[in-house]
Amino acid sequence: MESGVLQPPLALRELRERVADANVRLVREGLVELTFGNASAVDREAGLVAIKPSGVPFTALCPDDIPVLELATGEIVAGTLRPSSDTPTHLALYRAFAGIGGVVHTHSPYATAWAQARLAIPCLGTTHADHFAGPVPVTRALREDEIAAGYEEATGRVIAETLGPTDPLAMPGVLVCSHGPFTWGAGPEEAVENAVALEVVAASTYRALRLAADVEPISEELLAKHFGRKHGPGSYYGQPS
Amino acid sequence: MESGVLQPPLALRELRERVADANVRLVREGLVELTFGNASAVDREAGLVAIKPSGVPFTALCPDDIPVLELATGEIVAGTLRPSSDTPTHLALYRAFAGIGGVVHTHSPYATAWAQARLAIPCLGTTHADHFAGPVPVTRALREDEIAAGYEEATGRVIAETLGPTDPLAMPGVLVCSHGPFTWGAGPEEAVENAVALEVVAASTYRALRLAADVEPISEELLAKHFGRKHGPGSYYGQPS
Amino acid sequence: MESGVLQPPLALRELRERVADANVRLVREGLVELTFGNASAVDREAGLVAIKPSGVPFTALCPDDIPVLELATGEIVAGTLRPSSDTPTHLALYRAFAGIGGVVHTHSPYATAWAQARLAIPCLGTTHADHFAGPVPVTRALREDEIAAGYEEATGRVIAETLGPTDPLAMPGVLVCSHGPFTWGAGPEEAVENAVALEVVAASTYRALRLAADVEPISEELLAKHFGRKHGPGSYYGQPS
Amino acid sequence: MESGVLQPPLALRELRERVADANVRLVREGLVELTFGNASAVDREAGLVAIKPSGVPFTALCPDDIPVLELATGEIVAGTLRPSSDTPTHLALYRAFAGIGGVVHTHSPYATAWAQARLAIPCLGTTHADHFAGPVPVTRALREDEIAAGYEEATGRVIAETLGPTDPLAMPGVLVCSHGPFTWGAGPEEAVENAVALEVVAASTYRALRLAADVEPISEELLAKHFGRKHGPGSYYGQPS
Repeated sequence: MESGVLQPPLALRELRERVADANVRLVREGLVELTFGNASAVDREAGLVAIKPSGVPFTALCPDDIPVLELATGEIVAGTLRPSSDTPTHLALYRAFAGIGGVVHTHSPYATAWAQARLAIPCLGTTHADHFAGPVPVTRALREDEIAAGYEEATGRVIAETLGPTDPLAMPGVLVCSHGPFTWGAGPEEAVENAVALEVVAASTYRALRLAADVEPISEELLAKHFGRKHGPGSYYGQPS
Repeated sequence: MESGVLQPPLALRELRERVADANVRLVREGLVELTFGNASAVDREAGLVAIKPSGVPFTALCPDDIPVLELATGEIVAGTLRPSSDTPTHLALYRAFAGIGGVVHTHSPYATAWAQARLAIPCLGTTHADHFAGPVPVTRALREDEIAAGYEEATGRVIAETLGPTDPLAMPGVLVCSHGPFTWGAGPEEAVENAVALEVVAASTYRALRLAADVEPISEELLAKHFGRKHGPGSYYGQPS
Repeated sequence: MESGVLQPPLALRELRERVADANVRLVREGLVELTFGNASAVDREAGLVAIKPSGVPFTALCPDDIPVLELATGEIVAGTLRPSSDTPTHLALYRAFAGIGGVVHTHSPYATAWAQARLAIPCLGTTHADHFAGPVPVTRALREDEIAAGYEEATGRVIAETLGPTDPLAMPGVLVCSHGPFTWGAGPEEAVENAVALEVVAASTYRALRLAADVEPISEELLAKHFGRKHGPGSYYGQPS
Repeated sequence: MESGVLQPPLALRELRERVADANVRLVREGLVELTFGNASAVDREAGLVAIKPSGVPFTALCPDDIPVLELATGEIVAGTLRPSSDTPTHLALYRAFAGIGGVVHTHSPYATAWAQARLAIPCLGTTHADHFAGPVPVTRALREDEIAAGYEEATGRVIAETLGPTDPLAMPGVLVCSHGPFTWGAGPEEAVENAVALEVVAASTYRALRLAADVEPISEELLAKHFGRKHGPGSYYGQPS
């Protein structure tokens, strides 16, 4: 199955397995239809990225099907299948956000509706605050010249531009205007969990605004309390690691 | 199981299998309830069409249950079951659109809501642009005389009238006013995928408009970029064939 | 398992099996949560009705669990379990509508929303017209005296009052105001199918009205065409029986 | 697996099994995503509470994984895993409501939307009246000082404050403002059923209000009739116990 000239080191096997698992989980969680979506992971030490192959059904993914590329150049170093057409977006995110280890892109139903409405998702509840330390932002529309050449890389750049100086692990997702959500995390597993959480939040906030169009966002105190109890030095959610 | 006087040629076996598979997949994808929906395929060389039998549960479909008809005359040449009552619509579409190889009709939840609202689906996002090169149109209401005689064939004609000079593979679906969606493609598999995509798009656009009633359609550039990266000579999505 | 003094005739075995199957199918079709719902069937010749036992999980239903009652008196003639608390409603419907053989009650999500909104479902599409020959009506609210005594029987009477002289097989369902849908049919299988169709129609009409609040009902011609192609002497949908 | 100094009495084994089952059922009923939710039970005689461990996947829960705490002190007496971060809320509810035996917390889709909209759910139908003897209330927002220290216990106190003198078994659920639903019951099984019913009611009432924004709540008579036929001395729903 392997035809590249470079034989990937043993550690890459695990990276490809985690990427295959993350992609399969996107389907199980109901976040993707057909082939709309992809997950990737980076090995910072090796400088390599593993990502879903383009247009291949999720159900059939094996670790050997997962293309591996150099983070610096985008050159393919393992795998015979063409990587996702969104690969330049993933690479741009790994370059812009040094602290992340996995990226997920979906067209999940409610998050995509917010992206198509070109609206940030306000923080109306604690489920949101458990994962995102504020409103989930939406990018500006891409310019004509960004669409014409290097479109996928520009998509990554506009996500980084939207996040600005915010810590990517405090806001692990952005809606791309008229497109859909990208999420990330410490690894591909966390990126998938943030994609699940973003869809849940997108749905409940959509409905809350139908019930009460002018409801206020939650207070800074409640937001900080919930984000802080799951993340950072004072966290006390989950088991001690 | 076969009682027709004509024994179908070997190649028809495959056509019937693909049609049986396409119909079963409509259920798996959540596009049909009860017996509301049907898929067909055409063998242009043989001049034959295979289609779902009428009112038969999807779960029980075997290739031998699939009726086969002459494209030119609608005469049944294989199979003992009565073909779908929508057969004249399928035949009309195969006659009007020379480039298509499969047709699907569903009453999928959101696409049907748009058809019942008598509204075209505007293109608000890239999921839409990946499959449909513009708004998905809705037909005019059928006239009294079209309902009174040859209703199902008139349904096919009004779809073709709605599409006009547009390439059917650039706009592989139309909403029939007060009824539901018809989609098509190079083969029955592509027709099913377009039915899935249409339902996804119908749902996300429904929700985007609840969030932002006056949101603008995406730019011509973004639409052309996304449709073009999946279809036509410059496409680079998926694996090389 | 059988403790009644009367041993039910052999034909009752089939009636109870069909009622057990119909109840289990309500769950499979996503029409009921917990124990909210029930299906029954009548044997007109024997004057007996079989119905779901009260408050028993659907998954565990065996034919021997299905209570059997006299249609005329409501007296239990077979089975050790207490019949559904909605039994008097079912009996009232069997008495009022001589042509029906099965009754189903659910709290299915969208049909119940219409019932709680106290609104009839207008006929906006052909899925609706395939099953219901006009708007699906909603009953008036029950009066205080009807709630105080004989509430469940009054529920059946108000359904019959709402239908008036309409043929129950042309309008095989009614929404009970602030409660939920009751459907019926030639047998319990048809009653379940009408419950499925009613939920589909309730959902698509809900959504169509969000998209276009003032959309008109379909024409009388289109309604008659679709209802007529599935029902009555000129029908041509499905297989010849 | 057990490392506590105290060996739990035999009866605790059953309590932990019931809590493990209740937590697993929350997933099966579609009420929780990821690790958002928890179920607990109390043994009043032993003064002990069993509850889901924090941040552990639901699918993997065994009775031995279930932490057990003293109701009076919150001290852990069995189990090696850290209990849910919402444990102080559960303990506060068991202390405030002497008649309850189980508590469930979810972020179920529609109930959470109501909580985020900061609105009580009005009683528009009999499904609601079957479980909740009036509108399901929403708490006030927590004050800054309540968020800063003892947040989870304050959440329990504000629920009790919201319920006031109402019998907790007549109103077995409250929406916590900007957070989500808590439900309870005679045991953990009933608490789960009330969580299911609350989600069903939250969804149908959301939709009914989209269809008819000014629909009136059901009458006191109908509410009392339905609640009374399932609960209390005159109940006649279900099987005699």
